[in-house]
Amino acid sequence: MSEEQLADVVGGIVEVSAEAIGQATARQAQLTKPAGSLGALERAGIQLAGIYRTSPPPVPGCATVGVFAADHGVCAQGVTPWPQEVTVSMLLNMAAGGAAINVLSGQAGADVMITDVGVKLDYPASPRVRDRKVAAGTRDLSVEPAMTLEQALAAVAVGLDAADEAVASGATILLTGEMGIGNTTPSAALISVFTGAAVATVTGHGAGVDDEVLAHKVEVIERAIALHSPSADDPVSALAAVGGLEIAALVGFILGGARSQVPVILDGVIASAAACVAAAIAPAAKGYLIAGHAGLEPGITAALAHLGLEALVDLGLRLGEGSGAVLALPIVRSSAAILSGMATFADAGIEA
Amino acid sequence: MSEEQLADVVGGIVEVSAEAIGQATARQAQLTKPAGSLGALERAGIQLAGIYRTSPPPVPGCATVGVFAADHGVCAQGVTPWPQEVTVSMLLNMAAGGAAINVLSGQAGADVMITDVGVKLDYPASPRVRDRKVAAGTRDLSVEPAMTLEQALAAVAVGLDAADEAVASGATILLTGEMGIGNTTPSAALISVFTGAAVATVTGHGAGVDDEVLAHKVEVIERAIALHSPSADDPVSALAAVGGLEIAALVGFILGGARSQVPVILDGVIASAAACVAAAIAPAAKGYLIAGHAGLEPGITAALAHLGLEALVDLGLRLGEGSGAVLALPIVRSSAAILSGMATFADAGIEA
Repeated sequence: MSEEQLADVVGGIVEVSAEAIGQATARQAQLTKPAGSLGALERAGIQLAGIYRTSPPPVPGCATVGVFAADHGVCAQGVTPWPQEVTVSMLLNMAAGGAAINVLSGQAGADVMITDVGVKLDYPASPRVRDRKVAAGTRDLSVEPAMTLEQALAAVAVGLDAADEAVASGATILLTGEMGIGNTTPSAALISVFTGAAVATVTGHGAGVDDEVLAHKVEVIERAIALHSPSADDPVSALAAVGGLEIAALVGFILGGARSQVPVILDGVIASAAACVAAAIAPAAKGYLIAGHAGLEPGITAALAHLGLEALVDLGLRLGEGSGAVLALPIVRSSAAILSGMATFADAGIEA
Repeated sequence: MSEEQLADVVGGIVEVSAEAIGQATARQAQLTKPAGSLGALERAGIQLAGIYRTSPPPVPGCATVGVFAADHGVCAQGVTPWPQEVTVSMLLNMAAGGAAINVLSGQAGADVMITDVGVKLDYPASPRVRDRKVAAGTRDLSVEPAMTLEQALAAVAVGLDAADEAVASGATILLTGEMGIGNTTPSAALISVFTGAAVATVTGHGAGVDDEVLAHKVEVIERAIALHSPSADDPVSALAAVGGLEIAALVGFILGGARSQVPVILDGVIASAAACVAAAIAPAAKGYLIAGHAGLEPGITAALAHLGLEALVDLGLRLGEGSGAVLALPIVRSSAAILSGMATFADAGIEA
């Protein structure tokens, strides 16, 4: 897609409905519970009203977890102990239904939609993996831009299309997922760029590096940022310079969800990075974002604070895949059900 | 029930299976995810294996929220702004399906079992409310024991029977719920007694008292403890002196769940207080407890630390009813599903 086409997408994203938010806020106060006593559940329900533009909001039934897989040239710098073969192994494991995201989605009643947007190594084609490969992995962002602008935009388009396809299939809520060995490195880079936080404060242990590798990871990211001088004012260029193909696809997935006026539950640090980029491209998209899981990566905290979001769940996960988003799905559904299902004080004949 | 009969119940509670815990711990390390990357979800799954004495554990399907309602004589001291009529109104609201616990249980797929163990005021009989009234509310614990020993034991028996009935009806997991205007006051008193923490550090705003009433609430509890000198070494007497009828029923419900070897998900501060009493009566019961929700009451933190439990969810709730327990239910189920549903590295042909 061209930058003009992206601008059209951005132009199609409207702010969530302040009127419905007002109505839902008033309704929370009429329900048979002390005011505010359902905490974050009340806030989530009010947000859903704003997103769906009606109060009480519908309970989001049909849910799709968009899992985008890609590889990262920066793995050449030794930022992770896992070999890139694992991206393929886990992709095929997900296609076979054996990964955590499959099990958790089955429990929550969510569909898993798997898209290869940039896996490096070859593997046998699977009917459960959508082949939308833009490139066989990114370049090493510590020595050159991870992607060309064209590649970044093409990956954004893959995510947009995935969101449109999910919504066309009936999804009324989207959840972000990903798989890509090394992808906490570009995520930390993007979060540093978009939040303004120092690299060392937003870089974490990923799926399990030790302190020595963590220090090296920070140095690699700092070198990349010094090399490319990415700016939050030019989000697509920043995404191309220090991002990843699956992160770009998630940016598109988020924008696509916002354009279709459905909520998007963010998973962990990769999704948080994509959300920072998406919000810089289209500030109105922020209102459609729900932070599913806090997690152990420090970048999540910085990104969510930047986006004004509060995570619903914190189980100390550091897996990714979409696991934290799908664990939050029942809570999100419950937040909507409260607004439509509870009696008001008037219904129950209680003086408020 | 007599103290001898309670001793028989205690004798029937066996420690969770260390063997199954060992097997589940080993299995977590073989599943296709970085070791420990599912955080608290992994620990919950391991605990369920210990409780059900098999690895992988079954996914707990049929769930019962035991909601026990009662009133509190200490309301005469002005510890809450809500009139005792609200206990009845909310009980009838629950019976009609309009309360938060009904909506949340509907979403999670859990049954709500409502028991009147000590509501003060009269109300029209409802087929959805089990009448097991031991007394028309407790006495004012700040001037006399809240219950006689016989009343406390009778209320414990009500909870035991409810657990047995739920399990006989097919429940494989129990969740605690309650309704009782003023019941954060006896809960804070019990938590102070059983954890040894100062009253002021474990007493909170309940369903919404201001700082002035909070200070008064602390003073009332301190006075009660000075009057009765309740001791954790004589848990039933302490429960009778400064507890409540629904808290005593929850003690029985917890003991009943442990005796039937099913997990019991605790809701907020009322359940935490009951759990402290139950664990003092039967230390082996601790292994069956899962802390659903952290919440805003400071007593929860002290009680869970005392019990060695970690809350799964924290949405800032201060409602009670069982709301925090039932919101954690999908997470508990998912923790079991992970152990049975995920592929191992060997299954997926990945070198660990």
